Amino acid sequence: MPDLRKDPLTGRWVIIATERAKRPRDFHNDSARLESSYSPFSAGNEAATPPEIRRYSDGRDPDGADWTVRVIPNKFPALRVEGEMGGHADGVYDAMDGVGAHEVIIETPRQGEQLEELPDWHMELVLHAWRDRIVDLKNDKRLKCAVVFKNHGAAAGASLEHAHSQLIALPLVTTELELEFAHSSAYMNLRGRSVFTDMIAQELDAQERVVYEDAHVVAITPYASRHPFEVWLMPRAPYAAFEVSDQPTIGATARALKAVLGKLAAALDHPSYNMMLYSAPFGAEHAPHYRWRLRVQPKLYRLAGFEHASGFTINPTPPEVAARHLREIDSTGR
Amino acid sequence: MPDLRKDPLTGRWVIIATERAKRPRDFHNDSARLESSYSPFSAGNEAATPPEIRRYSDGRDPDGADWTVRVIPNKFPALRVEGEMGGHADGVYDAMDGVGAHEVIIETPRQGEQLEELPDWHMELVLHAWRDRIVDLKNDKRLKCAVVFKNHGAAAGASLEHAHSQLIALPLVTTELELEFAHSSAYMNLRGRSVFTDMIAQELDAQERVVYEDAHVVAITPYASRHPFEVWLMPRAPYAAFEVSDQPTIGATARALKAVLGKLAAALDHPSYNMMLYSAPFGAEHAPHYRWRLRVQPKLYRLAGFEHASGFTINPTPPEVAARHLREIDSTGR
Repeated sequence: MPDLRKDPLTGRWVIIATERAKRPRDFHNDSARLESSYSPFSAGNEAATPPEIRRYSDGRDPDGADWTVRVIPNKFPALRVEGEMGGHADGVYDAMDGVGAHEVIIETPRQGEQLEELPDWHMELVLHAWRDRIVDLKNDKRLKCAVVFKNHGAAAGASLEHAHSQLIALPLVTTELELEFAHSSAYMNLRGRSVFTDMIAQELDAQERVVYEDAHVVAITPYASRHPFEVWLMPRAPYAAFEVSDQPTIGATARALKAVLGKLAAALDHPSYNMMLYSAPFGAEHAPHYRWRLRVQPKLYRLAGFEHASGFTINPTPPEVAARHLREIDSTGR
Repeated sequence: MPDLRKDPLTGRWVIIATERAKRPRDFHNDSARLESSYSPFSAGNEAATPPEIRRYSDGRDPDGADWTVRVIPNKFPALRVEGEMGGHADGVYDAMDGVGAHEVIIETPRQGEQLEELPDWHMELVLHAWRDRIVDLKNDKRLKCAVVFKNHGAAAGASLEHAHSQLIALPLVTTELELEFAHSSAYMNLRGRSVFTDMIAQELDAQERVVYEDAHVVAITPYASRHPFEVWLMPRAPYAAFEVSDQPTIGATARALKAVLGKLAAALDHPSYNMMLYSAPFGAEHAPHYRWRLRVQPKLYRLAGFEHASGFTINPTPPEVAARHLREIDSTGR
């Protein structure tokens, strides 16, 4: 059973993998190369993965594959579904059993096909898979929130080349979500409005950092971008949780995400990137002060000692400069 | 002038480099290789660096170099010393002029010599340089705290091979320090004791995670290690700030750091690493609930989407396993 342990100095939790612990020699061969010849995620290799949780098949696959998007449990999960939830003290420290879910969303039956290359209807199926898995995992009352993320490219921490995203559902609310809830809630208490509403209004008015907009969603390079060419994609309507968004918003998100990833690929020569979905914790889906967002973070530089020690980052590209470059590329990536 | 900008959702600040902004093509050639043939930091190349702030020369250099440790301003500073401190609003956002200091501590006149290879007296001079620079920068009333850090190896974000550490002094207290102050202060309010006192007592009693100890300092792999083989080095006496430590503590820290870095180099085949000094903000040097510590974090894996989104990490090596490996290596690195 993995162990969830709390740092007494910061309140942050760490998942300690107690089984198959990595020893010093295991790190020596940790190269940054991806396995790219054989993919266990390709159509035809279904037996190489754990039994599937769900498949999406819309019959429109160009190669006639049986499925378009497929959800499976992670073969090497960070947390375990089995077990009772419960915290315990360990002297001065606090710990918890590592209960949770860790799933993989295979975004395409074809290795080498990238997320931004998928047609709109296929991209939308990926987002439906995220939504459906969150909705289903909410039935497990031990779980408090879900983190959907995608690591693309070896530099961004991917270990397989085949396009996929992941979902980790946790028995506690993440520190980042707690921090964002605290700040957005304080803002609403003080000013009577959502910080997201004010922020989006200011951005649309200034047009300095807007990368993409339509009737349902907006994408910006945020004012205090932690990383160069970071992009936030948010709904215009005040949905605190991704899974309560209406269908037009999900459809628009699919088109916007395809445009944003296409622009980043063209501007930065297909960079490695991390993508993260920030969405309200389970039970707070209608918090008026919060709003979900997708954060895309190209991996262009390394976090180092200063960033670790301070929690601050040094961003060498002002978001206004990044937005100008991204706006100049049309949404088909040219 | 660099811009300090605050993320309205987390309260974290970002240093935005507004001069010489990096454009997309600047990232294409960002390789992980270090310049290793010529070093501007070597004895004899003093003219290649900005004018020095201070030098330490104890006349014992084996090659007869003029200096042993040398402090210079960073040639490409993240913050600027000139200018008035002042915050301003930018609509919904908050910003501040990027005032601060960014210095480099050249740890040896010889390229290729590593910090852990220095004799005790030389290692102690490096720590004296850190302490003296903090004490001097405190006279600048615009500054609120100093972060001393070291990036060793390309994977840890170093751009020069020659052994050096850095110091950034900031016009505000870092988010991490604020978080640690809040947690350690709450602990003392609740229990009447310092969390550091309790933690060190428990670790010395259990001996499961102790890597090094003497009469003045203790080094452990922390209970909730965020990274594999992470080590914390702390004084036994309740010094909240590094610069108020007494001489025996500084001397013991030099010997302990040499031992810890030697053990990590031997166990992990000379890994890249980040080292960070956490020390009380200026004016809070005697806070009874806090204690300074050195954190050494070998760079063995990549932070990815889950870690960014959650603030949690997944650590594949339990600290008990890491400590066992490090204890088995004697302090001369064999």
